[in-house]
Amino acid sequence: MNEFALIARHFARTPRRADVRVGIGDDGAVVAFETDMECVASVDMLVEGRHFAAGTDPQRLGHKTLAVNLSDLAAMGARPRYALLAGALPTSDSGWLSAFMRGFDALAARYGVELIGGDTTRGPLTLCVTVLGDVPAGRAITRAGAKPGDDVYVSGTLGDAALALAVRLGHIDVDAAGLRVAGERLDAPQPRIALGIALRGIASAAIDVSDGLTGDLGHILEASQVGAALDLAALPASDALRARTHGSGRDGALACLLAGGDDYELCFTASPALRTRIGAVAQDLSLALTRIGAITASPGLVVRDETGAAMSALPRGFDHFAAA
Amino acid sequence: MNEFALIARHFARTPRRADVRVGIGDDGAVVAFETDMECVASVDMLVEGRHFAAGTDPQRLGHKTLAVNLSDLAAMGARPRYALLAGALPTSDSGWLSAFMRGFDALAARYGVELIGGDTTRGPLTLCVTVLGDVPAGRAITRAGAKPGDDVYVSGTLGDAALALAVRLGHIDVDAAGLRVAGERLDAPQPRIALGIALRGIASAAIDVSDGLTGDLGHILEASQVGAALDLAALPASDALRARTHGSGRDGALACLLAGGDDYELCFTASPALRTRIGAVAQDLSLALTRIGAITASPGLVVRDETGAAMSALPRGFDHFAAA
Repeated sequence: MNEFALIARHFARTPRRADVRVGIGDDGAVVAFETDMECVASVDMLVEGRHFAAGTDPQRLGHKTLAVNLSDLAAMGARPRYALLAGALPTSDSGWLSAFMRGFDALAARYGVELIGGDTTRGPLTLCVTVLGDVPAGRAITRAGAKPGDDVYVSGTLGDAALALAVRLGHIDVDAAGLRVAGERLDAPQPRIALGIALRGIASAAIDVSDGLTGDLGHILEASQVGAALDLAALPASDALRARTHGSGRDGALACLLAGGDDYELCFTASPALRTRIGAVAQDLSLALTRIGAITASPGLVVRDETGAAMSALPRGFDHFAAA
Repeated sequence: MNEFALIARHFARTPRRADVRVGIGDDGAVVAFETDMECVASVDMLVEGRHFAAGTDPQRLGHKTLAVNLSDLAAMGARPRYALLAGALPTSDSGWLSAFMRGFDALAARYGVELIGGDTTRGPLTLCVTVLGDVPAGRAITRAGAKPGDDVYVSGTLGDAALALAVRLGHIDVDAAGLRVAGERLDAPQPRIALGIALRGIASAAIDVSDGLTGDLGHILEASQVGAALDLAALPASDALRARTHGSGRDGALACLLAGGDDYELCFTASPALRTRIGAVAQDLSLALTRIGAITASPGLVVRDETGAAMSALPRGFDHFAAA
C-alpha cells in the first residue's frame, strides 16, 4: 500500500463539525476558532523503546498517544478541538494501523477532537501528536500563578503507572487485582479534561503529572517563584501502592508516589478560600481532589514524612536526557 | 545537559508578539487568532536517512525542517504565525542543536513565525514540525477548485533539488555553477509564502511541489475531479537541467523535471481571464510564474513532448511506502 492509499484508508475522514473548514487531504487543514476564544497548542513525541515497549498493543498505544497530549490541554484548562498526527512507521502494516487508529479515534470521539492533519513516513516507530484546544480569552491556567499560602492539590491517585511498569520489568510483585488497576493506568491513561475546564477561575496554577509529582510540581514552583511543603501521608495512592509504603517495599513505593511518571493526573494550586468550591468540583466529577500541602514563600520543595520530618532525599522525576 | 536545561537553552524565548499569550515553557502555548481569520495547520515529519542524510549540516537542516512546513502554508494561501517543534535526538549535542536552531530561527524570523511549543526526547534523529498560519475566513486555497479550461502554472523552476541529489549520489555530473544553484535548492528551499498570499482570490487550486510535479498536480486533479494536459517544453528549468533535456541524459533530466521532489515551488490553477493579474503578481514578486498547460474535463494527466505527442510513461513521484 502506498503512502496516499495508506492515508486515505486510515486517516481520511469527513469532519464531524462545521468549524473544520478543510480537513485531512490538503496541504493544510483550515479551522475556525470561535470569537473570544484563544487557541491552546501542545506537541508530544513518543518513541518506541523509550516511551513504549516494542510490541505494545497498537489500540492502547493509539489511545495513549492522544491521551498524553490531551492531558497537556487539561492542565491549561482548555477544551480539546483538533489533532494532527505524524508517524514514522517501520512498515505499512495495515492491521497495526487500523488498531492504532481505533484507539486514537475512540478517545478523540469522546472529547470531540477532530483529526485534521497528518504525515506518514517510513522510519523507526515514532509518533508525534499536536493538539489544539480552546479556552475563553485570558482564562488559560498556567504554571506561573501559584502564591504563598495556596493549597496544593492532586487529582485521582499517584504512582500507579510507575507501579505497573515496575511489575512488568520484574522489579516488584503485586497481586493480580492491584496489577490490573495499575496496568490500566499505565496503558490507558484518562486525560483530566473535565477537571481542567472546571478549574478555570479556581486554580492559580496547574500542571499534568507526566514525569512525576516532585518534578512536575517543581516546574510550578520555578515558574511561580515559590516553594512548597507537602505531607507524604496525604498523597493519594491506590490500595496496592498504599500497602507497599510500609515495610521492605517502602522505598520503591515512595519513588512511585513522588516521582512516578505517566499518571496524567493534574497537580494544581488554589487559594484556601476556594476549598468549598473545589470540594464541589470533586463531587460533580466523582473524582478525588486531595489537598497534599501548601505553597510557601521560601523556595524549594519539602516533603514531610509520617513523623513530620522533612525527607532528606527525594526520588527524582524522569528526564529523557539525564545520564542513566 | 538534562531535558529541561536543553529546552531552556535552545528553545525558550520571549515571544516577540502580543498574540502569543503563553509561549514555550508551560503545558501548552496560548495564542490569539485575529477576528475573521481562520487557522491553517500542517505537520511534517523528517527522518534521518530518509528525508536527509546522516551528517547533514544542522543549520541547513534547521532551515529546511521549517521550510517544508511553511511551504504547505504557502500552498493554502496562509500567513505563517506559529510553529511547534518536536525532535527525537540520539544525543544532547549542544553544538548541533545550536546550529539547527540558528537555521530554524533565521527562517522563522524572516516570516514572523513564533516558536511556541516543543518536545525533546532521545531516539533515532526525527524532527516533527507543526505550523499554524492564518487566512481571512473563507479565502484559503485548496486542491479542490480547479475547473476545466483553467490554466496550470508553476512558480520558479522545477527539478533542481532532484538534480542536486542525483549529483550527490554520483548518478550524474554537472558543472560547478549548475551544482551550486541546484544544491541551494535542495538544502535551503525557500517557501513561496508571498506568492501563496498573493494568489488568494486568484488561484482556483494550489499545491506545493514536494513530491514531484506529476504526483502533486495529480492530487489537484483528483481533489478537483478533472484532468490536465501539460506541455513538456513549457516546464521551467534551470540552465543546468535544461541543458540535459537533450542527448543521453534526457531521461534523467525529464525525471527531475516531472517527478523530482523537494522543489517547494507552487503549482496552481487559475482562470485564463486572470492572466494579466498573474503576470502582475510575477512582476511584483520578481518570481517566474510559468503557464505549463491547462485543466481538462476528462480525467488523467497528459504531458505532450516537444513534438506534440503524449508521453507514454511518466516518471513517478516519490512515495514513502512504495516498494523500492
